[in-house]
This record gives sequence, C-alpha cells and structure tokens, in this order.
Amino acid sequence: MITLDIINKKRLGKELSYLELFDIFNGYLDGDVPDYQMSALLMAICINGMTDEEIFALTKIFIDSGDRLDFSDIKGIKVDKHSTGGIGDKTTLIIAPIVASLGIPVIKMSGRGLGYTGGTIDKLESIPGYRIDLSEKEIVKQVHDLGIVITGQTGNLVPMDKVIYALRDVTATVSSIPLVASSIMSKKIAAGADKILIDIKVGNGALLTNREDAKKLSDLMIKIGEFYGREVRTIISDMNVPLGRCVGNALEVKEAIDVLRGKETDNNLTDLCIELSTDMVSMGLQISKKQAKEMVLNTIYNGSAYMKFLKLIERQKGDISKLKVSEKVIKVKSPKDGIVKKINALELGKLSLRLGAGKEEMDDKIDYGVGVKLNKLVDDEVKKGDVLFEMYVGKKEPEYNLDDIYKID
Amino acid sequence: MITLDIINKKRLGKELSYLELFDIFNGYLDGDVPDYQMSALLMAICINGMTDEEIFALTKIFIDSGDRLDFSDIKGIKVDKHSTGGIGDKTTLIIAPIVASLGIPVIKMSGRGLGYTGGTIDKLESIPGYRIDLSEKEIVKQVHDLGIVITGQTGNLVPMDKVIYALRDVTATVSSIPLVASSIMSKKIAAGADKILIDIKVGNGALLTNREDAKKLSDLMIKIGEFYGREVRTIISDMNVPLGRCVGNALEVKEAIDVLRGKETDNNLTDLCIELSTDMVSMGLQISKKQAKEMVLNTIYNGSAYMKFLKLIERQKGDISKLKVSEKVIKVKSPKDGIVKKINALELGKLSLRLGAGKEEMDDKIDYGVGVKLNKLVDDEVKKGDVLFEMYVGKKEPEYNLDDIYKID
Repeated sequence: MITLDIINKKRLGKELSYLELFDIFNGYLDGDVPDYQMSALLMAICINGMTDEEIFALTKIFIDSGDRLDFSDIKGIKVDKHSTGGIGDKTTLIIAPIVASLGIPVIKMSGRGLGYTGGTIDKLESIPGYRIDLSEKEIVKQVHDLGIVITGQTGNLVPMDKVIYALRDVTATVSSIPLVASSIMSKKIAAGADKILIDIKVGNGALLTNREDAKKLSDLMIKIGEFYGREVRTIISDMNVPLGRCVGNALEVKEAIDVLRGKETDNNLTDLCIELSTDMVSMGLQISKKQAKEMVLNTIYNGSAYMKFLKLIERQKGDISKLKVSEKVIKVKSPKDGIVKKINALELGKLSLRLGAGKEEMDDKIDYGVGVKLNKLVDDEVKKGDVLFEMYVGKKEPEYNLDDIYKID
Repeated sequence: MITLDIINKKRLGKELSYLELFDIFNGYLDGDVPDYQMSALLMAICINGMTDEEIFALTKIFIDSGDRLDFSDIKGIKVDKHSTGGIGDKTTLIIAPIVASLGIPVIKMSGRGLGYTGGTIDKLESIPGYRIDLSEKEIVKQVHDLGIVITGQTGNLVPMDKVIYALRDVTATVSSIPLVASSIMSKKIAAGADKILIDIKVGNGALLTNREDAKKLSDLMIKIGEFYGREVRTIISDMNVPLGRCVGNALEVKEAIDVLRGKETDNNLTDLCIELSTDMVSMGLQISKKQAKEMVLNTIYNGSAYMKFLKLIERQKGDISKLKVSEKVIKVKSPKDGIVKKINALELGKLSLRLGAGKEEMDDKIDYGVGVKLNKLVDDEVKKGDVLFEMYVGKKEPEYNLDDIYKID
C-alpha cells in the first residue's frame, strides 16, 4: 500500500521525500518491490521529472547501496572523466596518459559497451594479455608507481545502479535526465573522485539528441557536485558524426595511438581530447586553462603521453605488438561525385555492431578486430569510385544501405 | 525492440496507432510482453493521456480479446446501467426491477466487490440460495419469461480487462480516465447492451475525486458510444457521503427492499434510483424523461417493482425469508450536541471492510450479515448520547476513530 502511495504521488507530479525514495528503491534492490512497480515509478519519473532535492536524495541512496572507494592516501587531486557515450569514443585511451604524464593521478574504472560498440574495457581487451581486473590494492600500488590505472570496476560499487539500469534498458526509461544524472554522479562519487569532468554527447549517435537536454543534464550534474562538495565541469560535444575515423575495438586502440603520437591532428577526435585533457589538467593542478592547454600539447609533442600509454599497457600485462585488426578489408566506394554532407553516427554504430564489434545479444562474443575506418569525413570532396570507408570484416558480413551512412551531394 | 519503441512513443506523448496498441496489449495477454513493460506503458498513458482515436482503438482491442454476447433475439431495447462504484451503492437491486416492471428487458451481469465493500453479486449472495451463475441459455429463457436477470459475468467477456485491471491495481494506474472509459465501455458493448447509462461517482469514496475528471470521463464514454453506435447517457453523482443509510451486504438488500416498497423516501439513495430509472426507461421506451419519471414513481406506488424483485429472487432460487443480518449490534452514540456536517464515505467503507463486509485479502470470506446502518445523516441535529450509527458485528470488531467518520459541529 505504501509503495502504491509513493508511485501515485510521483504519477501526480508531487515531490517524494528522502524516506519515500529510500523505501521504494531499497525495497526494489532487496526484492520486495516487484519489477512492474519500479518500472511504473521510473516511467512517472521520466515524464514528470524530479526536483533537485529528490535528485540529491536519489544520488545518496544510490551511493549508499554499495561500497565507497577511498583513495585519499594517494597524493594529488584525483580527477575523473566520464562520457555519456558515443560512436567511436576512444577518448579515455588518449586523455588518461596525457593527464597522468603531467603528474595528476589517474584512476579510471571503465565499463563495457552498453550501446552499439564496445566500451573502454572492451577496447583495452583487444590488446592481448591486458588485465582489466585489478584489485583495490593493486590499483593503489600501480598509481603510486606509475600514476595511472585503467581497469574494470572493482568492489561492489553502486549495485542499485546495475539493477535500475537493467530495468530502465527494457522499459524505455533510459533517457531521463534526473536518472542519468544520479546514475553517473553516484558512480563517480562512490569511486572516490575529487573532481569530475563530464563529456555530454549530443546527436543521433548519443543518448541525448538535443542541446537543451544536454544543458539541463550539465546543470544538474554541476548542482549534484556542489551538493557533495565535488567540482564538476562539463563539455557538451557533438555526436551526429562519429568521433575520429575508426569504430571498432582494435581499430580504435590504433587510432588512439596515432593521436598520442601526434599523427592525427586534423579531426574532431584530437580536438576533443585536447579540450578534455585541458580541463582535467586545469582542475587537477588548479591552473588556468591557457596554461593547462600548453602543457597538454607539449605531452604530445615531446612523446611523454605516448610513453605513459606504453608503460600502462606493459604494467597491466598487455602486449601491444600483438594488437590485430581483421585481414579481410572491404573498400566501400562512392557511387558519385560530390561533397560529404553528413556521416550518420548511429548507422555506423549499428553497422559496427553487426560486424561483431559489440554484443547484439548478452551471450555474443566480441570480435576485437572488426570495425569501420572512414577515409572521407564531412566536407571532404569525393569522386565516383573514391573509397569512402573500409570495413574490417570477421565472421559476419552484414548488409547495409550506403545512403543511410553517407550523404553525398 | 518494437515494444520499447511503442512505450517510448507514449512516453514522449505521441499517438499510438491501432496496430501498435494491438501488438503490445495482445502481446501482454499472450505473455510475450512482461508485466514491467506493460506497467511502464500504463503509467505513460496515465500521465500523457490518449487521443480519442487511441481510446476507440483500445476499446476495440479489449472487446475483441474475448466473446461477444448476442441478445438480439430478445425483443425490446436492452438498456444496461453501470456505476463506477461507491460506498453503499445498491442501486442495481432497486433500478433493475423498476425498469423491468415497465416491460424493458433487463440483463444485468454484475461483478464482485473491488474496493471496500461487496459488489452487487456479493450483495445478492447474502440471500441464501440465490444463483449467480446462470448460463447464456438460462439468461435468455429467464428474460423471455420474466423480463429480468441479475447474474454474474458469463462467457469469456473481455479477458484483456481482467489482466490489465489486475496490473493497474498494483501499479497506481487505476484512475486513468482513458483506461477507465475503455474498460467499462468494452465490457458493456461485449455484453450486448443496446443503450448504456453510466453513473459516475465523484467524491472521497469514489475512484474520481473531482467533478472535472468526472465530466471528462462522461464526455469520453459518450464519444466511445457514438463511435460504436450505442446511445450513452451519464449521471454524475456525489460520493462524499455514502448512498443511503446502510453499508454491508444483507443490510443493503434490506434497504433496497425498503426503497422498492416506498418506505425510504427521504434520502439520496431513493432520489438517485428514481433519476437513474427515469433515464433507463426514457432510453428503453424512447419517451420523454417527464413521462418516464411518472411511470417509474408509479411502479413503486403500485408495488409492481417490488413484485418484480420478489419474482427475480424466487426464479434465481433465493430465499428472501432467510436473509439475515448480524444479531450483535453496537450502537455508536454522539459525544456531543450539534449538527452533522459531514459523513465520510471512504472511512465508512473502510470500517465496513474491516467488519468483514468486503475482502481485505484475496482469500478472505465475506460476512454477509455485518455492516453499518446510519441513524443520523448530514444536516441532522443530534444531542449528546443520540445513536449516530449501528454497527452490525460478526467475528471481527475493528477499532475506528469516530471523528474520522462523523463531523459534528
């Protein structure tokens, strides 16, 4: 009866108290509140929203549902970065070594793929041997020794988020700004971050498709940060076109290496990585963005970021020399002359998924070598017969409609 | 994925097509769509509403989910009456004989209690022997012979409504006007009514608590009726105070008999019954309300309505001489002098439920003899020590707070 009263209150657009939220969410985690009641509440939250007070309360309930990591022994301000997710997003692989090479401790616990492509952890697993299961003790030691860790989630962090996310995923309640904000912020706070940088993606390849919602999410996360005494900065970045030229696990690791070695300087990936690194360095060292940006660029010019990356891989037992992409490459050519007007990130993500770069079903195995590499980017001129992109193909050779991916006029 | 698209569309407040509604509702009935997805959709419908087209489509999907009864062989216009439910509502027991005594065929398939007290069928079962399980064949024969039947639901009428109602009941999605409208209208149409009269209750003892919502529901049901070629009339009646003086199964049957015998003429129950009967007779005989009202009053004065009632009970094997109320009666007295300002229908319903007149749990047995009889009504003057109401008590003797029920000033 009380559960029904809580759901009904939110249905009518009223504010729920901390105790009401506590009861129903913990009741769900404990198995006392059934799926169908929680999904009704989540839908009511999606449509009617939440007040700031409700969101602060929910974030606390999420954090308190599991362990909190404590890295206070590690010297320096720990800045964490989170991306709301997009097609071809390999920024963590680039930013983490840049920032660490400037003496800021980086403890990055990344996730697997949720949407169309693998997550950071899946990408790193395309490097044979790379360990993603470091213990809390190993993490602390490695940060002491090397200043950088990128591993999978350790401990029992925010178990509430896992069960609620799984339900949101199957009830069309994923893209709720309050729920996205408390999900992300609870995980970052529980993971012990001092300061947090959020890369909010907007576009057809992202969770949020309009800038207004991105701005709302940004404001909300900054507010949650203030409430919990954590400096939060946000960057709103475009996800109508994919990030960089490559989509796919090993292909993206190779592209990240190219950026770290200064070989890729002419696209949106490098720009975004420099912007994100600059913010993290500015936050971590408490210096101006101008100073920070100079330092960031220098880590690429002088090779220190790349060296840090190689040491990270080596320390976590990865063998970079064994990184492999598929040998079978299909060159997809332009059927006409013109200018590339648009590259649809969402469609590229789907193609990459169907090639095997992500999981279509829970039990699928990821094919690390497959993916897509774009030869032509937006605004490029193309002649009939020019290669638009290359498909790195494994066991699956999916059909696709070129017009859905490239718009040439 | 398609299910998610449908839920998402309604989440965003968009219109669902007939096919989309068909797929997801029938998917639920077939067990392919899980509870948690349907409850998310129901919540989105509750909050974002439905267009008229969607409601017409949903009503059709509900009707088509089961059998349709066909009483076209029975001569005369079959007028059905439905009440959205309230405390002390025994109007069917009174109206059906009145209308039938004027030669209008009455086929009433009633339900059991949903909320705090028993439904019409539970009330009739307080008459020992009364059969509520007539077959379709028996119904037709009895209407031919006697012109009246009151029985439980026969056939597999609107099975969709049963499963959806059960889910709405536990997900705080009961009081959605589009869902209420299609639930009621689909059942009336499937049950073969030519014309339909709806008694919409408003107040603290009803599903709807404000007149604005009642007006919306009324408009919607009339529209659905037009769409399906059924004349629909509505009456919006008050449910802040209980209907009549009695709440409880046998007590209500006794009160209905008093009204039919012209013994109770001074309260809201008689007035409402005359109003409802007048509308039904006007619809059934296609005459003016003025003419109809005269005829209705006459059936009470000349005893023909009461005779019809007795014949109905006899024909369905009930023994009215064996109708019993509890022998243990507790007289509840006024603690002070004053005027009765308010009698809270909801609280009386709860008290009656706890006495055993309704089911608190699925497995409870109804105690037909228990209930409450009001001696003092709103606006009555009371002196300290006057009996306000009598409790007819069975096995349970619940506690209650008199101030919650009677407001005397």
